[in-house]
Amino acid sequence: MDVRELDSDDWPQVWMIIRDVVRAAETFVYDPGMTEEQAYAMWVEQPPGLTVVAVDGRRVLGTAKMGPNRPGPGAHVSTASFMVAADARGGGVGTALCRYALGWARRRGYAGMQFNAVVETNLTAVDLYRRHGFRIVGTVPRAFEHPTEGRVGLHVMYHEFPHPS
Amino acid sequence: MDVRELDSDDWPQVWMIIRDVVRAAETFVYDPGMTEEQAYAMWVEQPPGLTVVAVDGRRVLGTAKMGPNRPGPGAHVSTASFMVAADARGGGVGTALCRYALGWARRRGYAGMQFNAVVETNLTAVDLYRRHGFRIVGTVPRAFEHPTEGRVGLHVMYHEFPHPS
Repeated sequence: MDVRELDSDDWPQVWMIIRDVVRAAETFVYDPGMTEEQAYAMWVEQPPGLTVVAVDGRRVLGTAKMGPNRPGPGAHVSTASFMVAADARGGGVGTALCRYALGWARRRGYAGMQFNAVVETNLTAVDLYRRHGFRIVGTVPRAFEHPTEGRVGLHVMYHEFPHPS
Repeated sequence: MDVRELDSDDWPQVWMIIRDVVRAAETFVYDPGMTEEQAYAMWVEQPPGLTVVAVDGRRVLGTAKMGPNRPGPGAHVSTASFMVAADARGGGVGTALCRYALGWARRRGYAGMQFNAVVETNLTAVDLYRRHGFRIVGTVPRAFEHPTEGRVGLHVMYHEFPHPS
């Protein structure tokens, strides 16, 4: 498995991953009826952001986007989002993408990485982020309408990078 | 003082307020170089959101926008933003706008109101929100680059509305 910058040839596979994840509506606060055009505008980052894919040969296993979390006085904190194809889960794709994003953000000199809305029932993601240095800053109760679990909390998670000495 | 829906005649005064607040870069994570066109797109809400002004006659003292905090599975939680003209601060304009937004969100059936990034040194805002039922869910440390205070924290604040019985 390799993680590399998104190529335009990858988009059809990336769109299938996004469509499935967004339609399931279990892990992201995105509109489940998002069109391909909206998905492209939302997922394909412009500089200073970056969109990458985890690939096995030509097959896209997962995708990540990363960039500043907020503009202006908040632009020194990064954020990232990750999606893994349903039949590639449990194989370390999320880990590879998360590590890539953290390395990217550190090299760019960001002060940390923030996740704004991690669904608390998405334990795979919460555990992955914890293992990579993120802590739960707080949880907004019942802020996510889960299709089977009802209203569950959304975590704000943050990983502050060590300050350069 | 009255709070009412934004009228197109109000926009020049609203833009002056936004420009001053955004340029000061002390309270909002917005791009300080925001153009008038960008400000309009950012501040003037489309339904189901709403933008209002606090007025004294024809004079705009402050403005607020409100709407769903997130799309899709997060759309049952509202958010709002408030700006008060520099020479109208301390006169209850923020309070009037905050009360208006809370009433609007309750009437629309939202489950609560979330503020995603309240600058911790903006004590006027933090105290106002606390008095109106908001609590600090968590604080992302050093996430806001303040022009004189250095890097200060950003609070996530939440007010969950009582459930209809």
